[in-house]
Amino acid sequence: MVQAAVMGYGVVGSGVVEVLTEHRDSIAKRTKEEIGIKYILDIRDFPDSPFHDKFTKSFDDILLDDEVRVVAEVMGGVHPAYEFTKQCLEHGKSVVTSNKELVATKGAELLRIAKENNVNYLFEASVGGGIPIIRPLSQCLAANDVIEVAGILNGTTNFILTKMIRENMSFEDALAMAQQLGYAERNPAADVEGHDAGRKISILASLVYGKHVYPEYVHTQGITRITLQDVAYAASWGGVIKLIGQVKRLEDQTLDITVEPMLIEKSSQLANVDDVFNGILVRGDSTGDVVFYGKGAGKLPTASAVVADIMDCVKHLKKRKYLDWVDGDASLVKPYTQTVYASYLRVESQLDKQKIIAAVSDVFSDVREIVRANSDDQELAFVTGDMVVADQEKAVAAIEATGIHVLSKIRIADF
Amino acid sequence: MVQAAVMGYGVVGSGVVEVLTEHRDSIAKRTKEEIGIKYILDIRDFPDSPFHDKFTKSFDDILLDDEVRVVAEVMGGVHPAYEFTKQCLEHGKSVVTSNKELVATKGAELLRIAKENNVNYLFEASVGGGIPIIRPLSQCLAANDVIEVAGILNGTTNFILTKMIRENMSFEDALAMAQQLGYAERNPAADVEGHDAGRKISILASLVYGKHVYPEYVHTQGITRITLQDVAYAASWGGVIKLIGQVKRLEDQTLDITVEPMLIEKSSQLANVDDVFNGILVRGDSTGDVVFYGKGAGKLPTASAVVADIMDCVKHLKKRKYLDWVDGDASLVKPYTQTVYASYLRVESQLDKQKIIAAVSDVFSDVREIVRANSDDQELAFVTGDMVVADQEKAVAAIEATGIHVLSKIRIADF
Repeated sequence: MVQAAVMGYGVVGSGVVEVLTEHRDSIAKRTKEEIGIKYILDIRDFPDSPFHDKFTKSFDDILLDDEVRVVAEVMGGVHPAYEFTKQCLEHGKSVVTSNKELVATKGAELLRIAKENNVNYLFEASVGGGIPIIRPLSQCLAANDVIEVAGILNGTTNFILTKMIRENMSFEDALAMAQQLGYAERNPAADVEGHDAGRKISILASLVYGKHVYPEYVHTQGITRITLQDVAYAASWGGVIKLIGQVKRLEDQTLDITVEPMLIEKSSQLANVDDVFNGILVRGDSTGDVVFYGKGAGKLPTASAVVADIMDCVKHLKKRKYLDWVDGDASLVKPYTQTVYASYLRVESQLDKQKIIAAVSDVFSDVREIVRANSDDQELAFVTGDMVVADQEKAVAAIEATGIHVLSKIRIADF
Repeated sequence: MVQAAVMGYGVVGSGVVEVLTEHRDSIAKRTKEEIGIKYILDIRDFPDSPFHDKFTKSFDDILLDDEVRVVAEVMGGVHPAYEFTKQCLEHGKSVVTSNKELVATKGAELLRIAKENNVNYLFEASVGGGIPIIRPLSQCLAANDVIEVAGILNGTTNFILTKMIRENMSFEDALAMAQQLGYAERNPAADVEGHDAGRKISILASLVYGKHVYPEYVHTQGITRITLQDVAYAASWGGVIKLIGQVKRLEDQTLDITVEPMLIEKSSQLANVDDVFNGILVRGDSTGDVVFYGKGAGKLPTASAVVADIMDCVKHLKKRKYLDWVDGDASLVKPYTQTVYASYLRVESQLDKQKIIAAVSDVFSDVREIVRANSDDQELAFVTGDMVVADQEKAVAAIEATGIHVLSKIRIADF
C-alpha cells in the first residue's frame, strides 16, 4: 500500500478522491500496488463527507508523515501551492498537479528540485484536462523534432466562439450563457483574455523546447473584440475564428509563441473542435500532424489525468521520469512585432469603395477582398499576404491616416 | 552507449535507421544515453548503403552479442519474426516492433516471455503508425474504465472511401488510384477485406481489457461491397461510411468487437478523418471522448514510433514497463449474431413502393426511409432501430421472400 495525500478539496480534488476510491481495484491491478488516501488538506470543513476522517487543516501533517509518498496538489493558484509543492519535493515526496498557473510560473525550478531529490513532479492534468498530451509529447513523440504545436486550449472561449459561429449569438450573450452553464467564472478574464491558454502554451513550449518559456513572454490576446461581423467574414472566406495558442521554432531558433484569435480554414483539423472541447495539433518532422482531441476541462476528466500521474509516481517511486526542462529567458522568444504572418482586416470608411481597396492594397501585400451577405454599409474586409507585424502596424496607421478605420485585424493560421 | 539492432531493412527498417542516425544528438539528450546501431539484419545486400558495414544475414550475430540490448523487429509477418523475437527476449534483449500481425497473433505469449526475462516488448508502432495510442491507452488513461474504442485504423481503405465520398469515384477506380500512389499493395486483400484493421483492434482490445482477443474472434468485413449509392444515401441521412474497428464491453462483460463499414453521423469526431489519416476514439468513464488523429502509416511516422519505443527500452533497461495482457479465449467475445445495433438498408424491387415500405416495416423496428437525389428506379433505402443481428438476418430473409432484394445492410455507429 502506497499512501497519497490530496491538497485542495475543490472540484478537481474531490474528483481525484472519487476516482481513486471508485477505481481502487483496477488501479491496484494496474499499479501492482494499492493506493491509499491518508490526508485531504483543506481549510474548509466537510463533516458530512464519507472521507471526513482524512481531512486536515495542517500542511505539516502531510509534510512530516514519511508514509505519504505522493501528493496531489490541486489547490490552484501560485501561493501557497508553490511553497507546499517545494517542501513536499524537498522531503522526498513526488507531487502531481493540475495547477497550470504554478507549472507555467515555477515549472523549471520545481522540476530541478524534484530532480535533486530523486522524485517526480508530474502535471499531465495542467494542459488539456483529460486529454493525454504532456506524456505523449515527452515520450511517444520523443524521436521527432516537433516543428509546431497549435491548440484550442481553453474550453470556455471555444464554447463562446462556437455559439457565435453556429447560432449568431453575440459575445456578451454567449459569455452570459457560459457563465450560466458553469463553464465560465463570474470573473471571466483569465479565460476570455487568453491568460489560461497562455499558461498552457507556455507549458507545452517549455516541454517541447526544453527551456522554460514564461507566460509573460507570450503575446496574449483574448476574444473580447471578436464580433459577429468577423465571424461572418471568416465563414465567407471558408473558415472559422478560434482562439489559438501556438508555438513554432523559427529559422533563427527563436520561438514564435502567441495566444490570439486566428482565422483557420474549414479543412484544418482544429476547425471542427467545437463547444468546450480542446484540440491540440502537434506537427513533427517525422510523424506529420498528430491531433489530440477531447474534453479539456471538467471534474472527472481532469481528476483522471491527476490520478494517472499518481499511478505513474507509484510505479516510479525509485526512478525519475524524464520530464525536464531548464530555466529560460526572454531571448528564447521572437518579439511579437518581428513575427511574420498573413492577416484578415475589416475596415469602415465613408470613402468610395475603390479608394478603400486602393489604400489597403497600397500598404499590404496580396490583398484580396472578402464579401459577405448583408454586410454593413461602408464596411469592407480583406485577407492579406505574409508581412512582419511591425510593418502591418505601420500599414494600419497609414490606412487610418487616409480616413479608413480598421475595425479588426486577425492573424490567419498556417495549419 | 547502448547498442541496438534492426531486423529487416524494408520501408520501416530503413526509416528506423534514418531517424536514429539523423536525430542521434537529440535522442541522446533525451535518453541520457547514446544509442548505437550495431547490426542490421536483412537477407538482401545493400553494398551502397552508408550503413553497409552493419549488415548481417545471420540472426545469431545479434542473438549472441550481449552488447545488443534492444532489437527492433520490423520484418513483418509471423515467421520468422516470432521465433526471432522469442529468442531475443529469452536472451534478455528488449524487443520493439511495428509488426501488428505478430502482436495480434502472439502478443500474450511474447509479453509473458518478456516478463519472465525482465525485459520489455513494446509495439507503439503496430497501431496508428506515428499516432501515440498504445502508450496513452496503457498509461495516461490508466485511471479510467475504457468503455469503448472505435477507430479508423486503416489508411488505405479510408483513402478509398474518401475518394468515393468526395469525388464520386467507384470503389475499383479509387483502389486503382490508391495502388498507383503506393497506398495499397498489388494484392490489396489485407486492407480492403479489413484484416489489417482487425489485427489493430485486436491489439487495442487486448490492451484495454487485459486478455488476448485474437483476430479470429473479430467479426471482420471489408469495404468491397460498398457502392456509390450507399455513399449517396449516407450523405442524405447526414453522415458518411467509414471502415470502423470497434470494441466495447457489454453488460454481461463480453466484448462486442468488429471491423465493418459503418454509417457515422457527420457530427461524429471520426467523420472528418479523411484520406490516409487514422483516427481513434477512446471513450472513458471519466475522460469522456478522447480522439487521437494523425497519419496512420508511412515510413517516417511509423519509424519514429519504433524509435520512441527503443528510447523507452533504453531508459528502462532494468525496469519493466507495465504493458501486459494474459491469454484469452473465444468466450471473451459476444458472437456477432447476438450483438445488437441499428442498420441502414438499401433494397430493390419491382413491387409498389408502399408495399416495400410495409414489408420492411413489418420485420424491422423504427423504420425510416431515406431519400436521395437521382436514385435508381425501384430502389429504396431505410434506417432501422436497434435489433439483434440474428433477428436482422431473419428479417432480411423474410423481406427477400416477398420479392424484395436487399442490396446493402450496413451497421449504424453509436458514437
